[in-house]
Amino acid sequence: MPHPRTERYAKRLQRHPVASLKRASPNRERHRFAALRYTGRMPETQRIPHLNAVVLAGGSGTRFWPLSRELAPKQFVSIFGGVSLIAQAVGRIAPLAEAGGVAVLTNDRLVSELKGHLASQPTLDGVTVEYLCEPSPRNTAPAIALAAAYVAARDSEAVLVVLPSDHLLEDGPAWERVIRTAAAAANDGWLVTIGLEPTRPETGYGYIRVGEPLDGTGEAGSAARRVARFVEKPDRGTAERYLAEGGYLWNSGMLVARADAVLRELEATGNGDLAAAVREIAALPPAEWTGERARARFAALRAEPFDTAVLERSERVAVVPARLRWSDVGSLLALELVAPPDERGNVLVGNVVDVDSTSSIVYSFDRLVATLGLHDLLVIDTADATLVAPKDRAQDVRLVVDALKARGAREVVEPRTANRPWGSWTVLVKGTGFQVKTIEVLPGRRLSLQSHEHRSEHWVVVEGEALVERDGERLTLRAGESTFIPAKMRHRLANAGDGPLVIVEVAVGGYLGEDDIVRYEDDWAR
Amino acid sequence: MPHPRTERYAKRLQRHPVASLKRASPNRERHRFAALRYTGRMPETQRIPHLNAVVLAGGSGTRFWPLSRELAPKQFVSIFGGVSLIAQAVGRIAPLAEAGGVAVLTNDRLVSELKGHLASQPTLDGVTVEYLCEPSPRNTAPAIALAAAYVAARDSEAVLVVLPSDHLLEDGPAWERVIRTAAAAANDGWLVTIGLEPTRPETGYGYIRVGEPLDGTGEAGSAARRVARFVEKPDRGTAERYLAEGGYLWNSGMLVARADAVLRELEATGNGDLAAAVREIAALPPAEWTGERARARFAALRAEPFDTAVLERSERVAVVPARLRWSDVGSLLALELVAPPDERGNVLVGNVVDVDSTSSIVYSFDRLVATLGLHDLLVIDTADATLVAPKDRAQDVRLVVDALKARGAREVVEPRTANRPWGSWTVLVKGTGFQVKTIEVLPGRRLSLQSHEHRSEHWVVVEGEALVERDGERLTLRAGESTFIPAKMRHRLANAGDGPLVIVEVAVGGYLGEDDIVRYEDDWAR
Repeated sequence: MPHPRTERYAKRLQRHPVASLKRASPNRERHRFAALRYTGRMPETQRIPHLNAVVLAGGSGTRFWPLSRELAPKQFVSIFGGVSLIAQAVGRIAPLAEAGGVAVLTNDRLVSELKGHLASQPTLDGVTVEYLCEPSPRNTAPAIALAAAYVAARDSEAVLVVLPSDHLLEDGPAWERVIRTAAAAANDGWLVTIGLEPTRPETGYGYIRVGEPLDGTGEAGSAARRVARFVEKPDRGTAERYLAEGGYLWNSGMLVARADAVLRELEATGNGDLAAAVREIAALPPAEWTGERARARFAALRAEPFDTAVLERSERVAVVPARLRWSDVGSLLALELVAPPDERGNVLVGNVVDVDSTSSIVYSFDRLVATLGLHDLLVIDTADATLVAPKDRAQDVRLVVDALKARGAREVVEPRTANRPWGSWTVLVKGTGFQVKTIEVLPGRRLSLQSHEHRSEHWVVVEGEALVERDGERLTLRAGESTFIPAKMRHRLANAGDGPLVIVEVAVGGYLGEDDIVRYEDDWAR
Repeated sequence: MPHPRTERYAKRLQRHPVASLKRASPNRERHRFAALRYTGRMPETQRIPHLNAVVLAGGSGTRFWPLSRELAPKQFVSIFGGVSLIAQAVGRIAPLAEAGGVAVLTNDRLVSELKGHLASQPTLDGVTVEYLCEPSPRNTAPAIALAAAYVAARDSEAVLVVLPSDHLLEDGPAWERVIRTAAAAANDGWLVTIGLEPTRPETGYGYIRVGEPLDGTGEAGSAARRVARFVEKPDRGTAERYLAEGGYLWNSGMLVARADAVLRELEATGNGDLAAAVREIAALPPAEWTGERARARFAALRAEPFDTAVLERSERVAVVPARLRWSDVGSLLALELVAPPDERGNVLVGNVVDVDSTSSIVYSFDRLVATLGLHDLLVIDTADATLVAPKDRAQDVRLVVDALKARGAREVVEPRTANRPWGSWTVLVKGTGFQVKTIEVLPGRRLSLQSHEHRSEHWVVVEGEALVERDGERLTLRAGESTFIPAKMRHRLANAGDGPLVIVEVAVGGYLGEDDIVRYEDDWAR
């Protein structure tokens, strides 16, 4: 039986043209992720011994605003197939890794949002995720080094897989073959990158020039090879030459390597100080990584990408060529992957009515967006903010984010909807002294036993059946029934039914911040 | 003391750049309405004997979507100075007309919205407005003829002023002088139009070629003159020639004439059948104008503009030249009149953050709109719908409205906020089986005593003090307190305080239409 939450996703997707993806032409590359849809079922496969995955999830993704926010960066975006990019990344590697061998490396600002987000993902039911916070943001060399030291300390034979959390990638047998090939080469001591076969002269990615094949690591064509060299994002002409010549792959940013090999190559490439620092921090319990001592030690490290600090200097770097559909979702133009274009080249997603536009991308989550006679334009509408820009300025969305930050705009920080382990909430309106939300609670789940110092809450059940605890007293409420929680009263909300529970909450008080909460009991130990 | 509602308007305006209009350059014509601000005070003046005003308010204004809706057409829009166009039109003529001599001619679809709208306008406190419904829409010749017949039947010496409800016009002494001059000429038997002195070679208006002055109707230059001829909207070259030559005025669509002269000229211009029909209908009580008999009689009339049916054929047509700032608000480009342009020629109104755009109009009522690198674009954002189009397609917004109608989109029909005589409501969210609104009640006002068959209502007071009647019982609720009204229960909500009352209402039920209401008592006899 599908998870009820999965059914709700499916219902939501029906409102969007992605639901009509079967009509998409499979030959046109821009639709290549159109068919990505997660079912919540884990493929049956054999786990790879010693495989430990670390998903990097510290990025801010300002180029994806307004779909991403500081507290809900790009990896939270679920417009590609209805499942967030990070839930896809975790779900893609979990069946291949050791049981319990999946960690997310993030930071202390995001970790609680991430826990809530992943705990509420039905496609990850049964997957245990460990949360690690890097002491401070120092780019990928220190982050990957720390991940390697941590994993190596737990399992001296560990094979580390480092994955970005905010890319789109084709799943399935081809993916599994690539990881198995990479893990085999890793066990021979190589640092193994994954290189995607280029399908167009893309100037937005770095390239890898392949060298000779490594013996015995796979079938001809898909065997791991030495890396001849890494090349920066090329200009158009160079990219076209790479494509014509062959022997070049897109650098995906994924890495598979023995954890001890990573530490060894740190030493070999003149990063001995880094290796020593991360060994020291990894010896601490993860809860102490964001303590003062670890933070100071980590903050003193040189902020550098792992590619330039290690991979471009090491003699032991290999690449597994992968014929997989992939996108780094580097800008809002990636929305072209969400739905097939119409006959005038527009990608229109959601509640959009267009007249006469050409080559434009119009995305609406919910509200009506009407467009007339646009050319090469990007219109992105969310519950609380709209962005309009020419497609060729997509990379400059960060300028808008900077302008918003300068104004202190909350729309750059907070999403309108937040996922929690028990479900989600959505702000409908924030007024002076009051705030109205809808709150959805998953079947069988409940919020923490809590109280608020400064706000009272009025709850109206509009769908499903609620079990409410008010100062020790329990009551069951059905659609159309309501209750009142005064400030300071201990209370708890649970979904008492088999279906969804939706309530409307009107909070009234002088201070309405999410941090006005005292938790007495919590199913997620928050 | 200013009306509390007026102060609330003022507060709302502060959120918009229109509040900073004092900085606008008075020399640039496009800002010419920037300083229009209504204070709610009626100028002290002498009423003109027998003057009866009829404001035409039947139009749909589809070219102003999404700011206008079928149930809130262009005349309801209050972005120009914070007071709706129709409230401005009524307020502008009321002090000059006979007491009780102001009527609005509309249709049965709009009349109840109009009553609610005008009754809630603080600038019209003390003004009595009569509501007339034309039997069916037949353009302005039948409408003006009916108005003339109705007014003539009440006062054989009546001077009729016909005014559009959805134009922008400068108020003050110059306006009063124009109306007095026109009324004097009307009393000599002329059908008097009002012609605005052109300030640019506008191709969107019709022009009037002036003839010789009428004696004794005003000072030199502002005296009424014969109309030499009416000319259709000219092309650019012709418009430039008119401006250079002089002797041409913009046709404002306003008319001042003795009601009996209108009927006489109907006969003189071959519209005797029309005159007979409207005399017959006007003899009925206005409540019967939308009855079957009157409707059939009226629907059989030729739909034609008054200009072509009468004015262009009559020998007795005059024009009063007016040096008044005026706009017919013919398209969304009129938003350029709301605020001064920035240094790159953009007019940005409301919660807008722009980077690098030029010559664009961006209007946001409330939500954040971010724009980047736009050129000559129009972005209009409202609570439930956003429109994006190039400025040069502003006239084609009706194509979007047609597309929306074809889809049955409610955003083309209903506004998110509706004014009522007691205040206003705003829909926050419509879900399956529930709807959340904020409701504002003006000080000292109350809703009708009512009940609903299909929905229960939960009220949370978030500002002010409410007096609630529940099945005969009365209770007072303050901010943070709530109550529950089950389906079928008689109830009433009143503002018991001196300040604003704001409540959040969660309605739950299988049917949530506004028409599920039984009224037992109502201060506005609805």
